[in-house]
Amino acid sequence: MTQRFDSRVRPAPGLDPDDDSVLEINVETVRRWLVEFLRQEIAVQRGFSSIVIGLSGGVDSALSAALCAEALEPESVHCFMLPYRSSDPRSLDDAHEVAEALGTPRRVIDIAPAVDGYLEKESGPGAHRTGNVAARVRMAILYDQAAGLGALPVGTSNKSERLLGYFTWHGDDAPAVNPLGDLFKTQVWALGRAMGLPLSVIDKPPTADLIPGQTDENDLGVTYRSADLILFHLLDGRSPAELVDAGFPEGDMRAVTARLDATHWKRRLPTQAMLSQTAIGESYLRPVDY
Amino acid sequence: MTQRFDSRVRPAPGLDPDDDSVLEINVETVRRWLVEFLRQEIAVQRGFSSIVIGLSGGVDSALSAALCAEALEPESVHCFMLPYRSSDPRSLDDAHEVAEALGTPRRVIDIAPAVDGYLEKESGPGAHRTGNVAARVRMAILYDQAAGLGALPVGTSNKSERLLGYFTWHGDDAPAVNPLGDLFKTQVWALGRAMGLPLSVIDKPPTADLIPGQTDENDLGVTYRSADLILFHLLDGRSPAELVDAGFPEGDMRAVTARLDATHWKRRLPTQAMLSQTAIGESYLRPVDY
Repeated sequence: MTQRFDSRVRPAPGLDPDDDSVLEINVETVRRWLVEFLRQEIAVQRGFSSIVIGLSGGVDSALSAALCAEALEPESVHCFMLPYRSSDPRSLDDAHEVAEALGTPRRVIDIAPAVDGYLEKESGPGAHRTGNVAARVRMAILYDQAAGLGALPVGTSNKSERLLGYFTWHGDDAPAVNPLGDLFKTQVWALGRAMGLPLSVIDKPPTADLIPGQTDENDLGVTYRSADLILFHLLDGRSPAELVDAGFPEGDMRAVTARLDATHWKRRLPTQAMLSQTAIGESYLRPVDY
Repeated sequence: MTQRFDSRVRPAPGLDPDDDSVLEINVETVRRWLVEFLRQEIAVQRGFSSIVIGLSGGVDSALSAALCAEALEPESVHCFMLPYRSSDPRSLDDAHEVAEALGTPRRVIDIAPAVDGYLEKESGPGAHRTGNVAARVRMAILYDQAAGLGALPVGTSNKSERLLGYFTWHGDDAPAVNPLGDLFKTQVWALGRAMGLPLSVIDKPPTADLIPGQTDENDLGVTYRSADLILFHLLDGRSPAELVDAGFPEGDMRAVTARLDATHWKRRLPTQAMLSQTAIGESYLRPVDY
């Protein structure tokens, strides 16, 4: 006779599309833990005394910068605004307001010369390709500024966009250390509010800010609140069918699962051909970590 | 009474700095497996019928392109040459020769406008920063060309440079599929020779081709032959002390272990703060792969 395997360590929360209490976090505990995480990963583990971060004017980067400013000194948090031609000028204003409030150094670098230096010879790349080139050029610039300053690049991707694959591979989700990677977007908002980020940053609709009027939630076809609830329950072991039975909107469910299923590769290392028992990251005989 | 754990499935090869037979591969078997791997990963798993690859004029990219041309049709292997101002013009000639021999389509895109569009406003970035910006801009361009063509980017990093951390993060080792990631450089040469790559590509000293006269082996302070042998035995479970006792040169050993130990982070996904039991890629309760 075998025991049925049950991985749950606590009773599963009820399935209710109107109950978003499952996403509630203890903001003070989370804040302290993330500050401690950053101090450990930046200073103790990696030996850096300063960081580089891209400020978009959105809530994720503002919150990440605020946490870094608390983990280090504000003057060690080098904020870069990297606007493109099509970026909303208000985003830059918001980013300045964040850096001003935190007391961090900041610099604006226009990415258009680099992006257009390449793209102007391409015929009609369109918004999607332009957005990905811009995201990757931003990554290259942040890493380069980090090298110039002897600082570590810090990432800003949240759990919602990482699960939905709503980011540019080797663009947004690239830096070595990421404080928000396990926080849903709605939790980022909650923590940002608790930490006193400027309301302009918290209350505006999230956007990649490359196409005027574009918003994340329009792109995704689902609100972050609904997507976060669905993702929470799916990761908690529930099936899409259970969620639909419990009243979660079928359209939202499809929007979430389609993205989740199509983007597993974005949450993994590249696939290599294995030829030996010591393939990097794959070997089951590895004596240490390689 | 417990059994002592021993992970070896075959007798360990002898430790002899002059014996490089441990690096020998059956070129015909490896070739067939890599071609099959590429067909599976590109066409079957991911549903692509064409790929994009950067041809540097070096052996890694030439071999990767040759394997892809065998896995798909040569006309489905889109080769891009991405020279910078400081690249050796002979590298471009070599890349053309490879594409010509394989019968693949090719295009030259000068990366200087994009790289300099950003760097010309930086004061004295130096060769190291310039090289990293160039590598990342190449990545951005290859991904963008892939998007334009509906093709998959294929990587070219070998096991030696990946273990030594001798690559640009989010630059060289970025594409989703990598045929050579578990082949040491000396094995790449052997396979390239067996597959009839142009001798100009096989016989020249490996270089990142950004600084005139720079070679990998000068940068690394050790030859690939020696580094590969040392890496093979380290990954096989031997200690540096054992290798030095057996006559492996101490300077080579130090050059290899210093790089190996300092670059583990380059072979991993970014570090995220974990806040839940369902952190991406970390959860031990994950029902599927997220």
